Amino acid sequence: MLDVAAKKTKAIPFDTHYLDRLLADAGIDALIVTSKHNIQYLFGGYRFFFFDYMDAIGVSRYLPVLVYRRGRPEDASYIGYRMEAFEQELGRFWTPTVQTTTSTSLDAARLAVEHIKRLGKGIRKIGVEVAFMPSDAAAVLLDGLEGYEFVDAQFPLERLRARKTAAEIALLKSASERVVDAMLETFGTITDGMTKNEIVQLLRRNEANRDLTFEYCLITAGTSLNRAPSEQRLRRGEILSLDSGGNYHGYIGDLCRMGIFGEPDSELEDLLGFIEDVQQRARKPMKPGARGGDIFTVAEELVHASPHKPYVEFVAHGMGLVSHEAPRLTATGPVPYSAHDADRPLESGMVVSIETTMKHPKRGFIKLEDTVAVTEHGHQGFGDSGRGWNRIGEA
Amino acid sequence: MLDVAAKKTKAIPFDTHYLDRLLADAGIDALIVTSKHNIQYLFGGYRFFFFDYMDAIGVSRYLPVLVYRRGRPEDASYIGYRMEAFEQELGRFWTPTVQTTTSTSLDAARLAVEHIKRLGKGIRKIGVEVAFMPSDAAAVLLDGLEGYEFVDAQFPLERLRARKTAAEIALLKSASERVVDAMLETFGTITDGMTKNEIVQLLRRNEANRDLTFEYCLITAGTSLNRAPSEQRLRRGEILSLDSGGNYHGYIGDLCRMGIFGEPDSELEDLLGFIEDVQQRARKPMKPGARGGDIFTVAEELVHASPHKPYVEFVAHGMGLVSHEAPRLTATGPVPYSAHDADRPLESGMVVSIETTMKHPKRGFIKLEDTVAVTEHGHQGFGDSGRGWNRIGEA
Repeated sequence: MLDVAAKKTKAIPFDTHYLDRLLADAGIDALIVTSKHNIQYLFGGYRFFFFDYMDAIGVSRYLPVLVYRRGRPEDASYIGYRMEAFEQELGRFWTPTVQTTTSTSLDAARLAVEHIKRLGKGIRKIGVEVAFMPSDAAAVLLDGLEGYEFVDAQFPLERLRARKTAAEIALLKSASERVVDAMLETFGTITDGMTKNEIVQLLRRNEANRDLTFEYCLITAGTSLNRAPSEQRLRRGEILSLDSGGNYHGYIGDLCRMGIFGEPDSELEDLLGFIEDVQQRARKPMKPGARGGDIFTVAEELVHASPHKPYVEFVAHGMGLVSHEAPRLTATGPVPYSAHDADRPLESGMVVSIETTMKHPKRGFIKLEDTVAVTEHGHQGFGDSGRGWNRIGEA
Repeated sequence: MLDVAAKKTKAIPFDTHYLDRLLADAGIDALIVTSKHNIQYLFGGYRFFFFDYMDAIGVSRYLPVLVYRRGRPEDASYIGYRMEAFEQELGRFWTPTVQTTTSTSLDAARLAVEHIKRLGKGIRKIGVEVAFMPSDAAAVLLDGLEGYEFVDAQFPLERLRARKTAAEIALLKSASERVVDAMLETFGTITDGMTKNEIVQLLRRNEANRDLTFEYCLITAGTSLNRAPSEQRLRRGEILSLDSGGNYHGYIGDLCRMGIFGEPDSELEDLLGFIEDVQQRARKPMKPGARGGDIFTVAEELVHASPHKPYVEFVAHGMGLVSHEAPRLTATGPVPYSAHDADRPLESGMVVSIETTMKHPKRGFIKLEDTVAVTEHGHQGFGDSGRGWNRIGEA
């Protein structure tokens, strides 16, 4: 039902003026938002608990929808799954109208069409999330909204999220610390001959017991460069890398730490020491106003001058609700529009993941990944502990 | 890269002849499968660990693709994310060709177009999963495969999964037992004044410690009928319902059990006793050859004859990799095609979730949900313990 009672004012949890400017720059008159991460952002941390993990249900799928008209948040409407009526009752939605009646993606798309039509004239170009709009819903929109132009709204929505608020920063800091803490506990309790699958299960539990949602663990053992969990066993004397993402209220902690089953020899100490040097050098230029690309410049100087150049990769990327998001500091990877931030200034509240990866031909996979936030006057690393060779089995 | 070395034979983990028959019935010449659950099924339990929880990455999303031509599994091809090269190295894919090179949904769709074109003549109608095909990928398919007809393949794919193998049954049984076990531990450790959010966190940890992937928990406390986790506190004397889905290697345990903080009075004993009667009655007709709709008939007889009729709902639905799937025993809910199984015979290997829900106007929300499998000669309940009033805080 259309809930008119909900018209009581609830604070809008994002900067509508900034969003309106971004939409104006893109020529977008209205948005139809359908990804879980952008719905979460635009509703101040809301993620419908029932479909947190899964999407499929019955013959269709969950598809939450926010319809937002540029410059008129008072015309916004939320379209939710029928069980989201429970959330509506708890006052989770700021939009003046809320409909929690859908069972399928088609239902959701039909209600979105109706709402756009209700808004009347002045809307020509509609921004959608093309990778998060199912094809059946898209067909309903195209059919029901003939004459409108549809464009991808990924860029303005990502840009809106690029500078994190203090509350978001606190979640990212906590997520990072919890992930590293879970890793250190895991290193301590691994025993000889454990498989990579078993080690990941340990880490998964250790993350869950810190109230993280475990997302994944990339893992290598010994001299193998294969990073998938498997039945490979870790033996005494071998090294281990854990690169895990765990989220805390939606915000991702994504870090990599190294373990060794025994004592590192001097070469291993040197190799990880080199990676640590690159990691520390890379974060040094980070402050408001600095050129984003400088993170790469200083790191790559070190790499290029070293004998490890052939098997070392450096990368840095923004992170938050999505594991790779703005600021986009490199041309590596898919950027289908002019969105590079390498030549733009860093801003306070941006959070960057910094990764130095060594695929050593003889010693195996050695890596550190850190999370560093741009602060008012410089930068701050989150979850910075456990950066050396963590001893395995010494809990 | 196209991995020709992978052409070594690996057993195909599903019944290709049955799939071919289902596709022939639907007039489908080739499939482009893109949902995580059907990819998992068609690769014998495979789910790419890195995107188990999330889909979004960078400016796009994860989109796994299986291209399958009816009657010619030797022409099948898997198209995966670039990091799935690690999984390919571990021999996870049975398809003769495997390409683990994509970064975006557009990449995946382009490779799917190329593969369909490579297959040459004889393909006219292509089945896709319309709710799990992103609109950007769909546009690439429509553009690259002009002249082909696209239809929804949800029905044959779901039908293929309706009868579970012994291995799937074992996972569903284990998932159900683990979920109930986690609930019983949770009931035991709840303390006075705990919020619903805190109780769900407890359950989440208890599921994680049993190697389940926690999916959700619907929860009510006291006389409230609101089933969302919230800051509502549970107090001495009140009742509590936990309805949680946790998956074990992808297969969902989804059960509901009741707790009480103190001792139930005779009315509460009677109400839960009534629900238990309906639940037991409903499973009684279940055996191979029985009419699926009989589950409803016998349960609804009991409900309609009782004074509780106005506030009791009964439902039963198939379950497995998806929480509501075939057999479809009721017209309730969205069924956009003729797929009702109410008048069809049950078959061994089908697994049904049976739910009796009471929204009592004075006493609150009381429910049992059970998982019952059709066996060779009858049926078997999974995770059948804890069906009475579980005492809270008596661990």
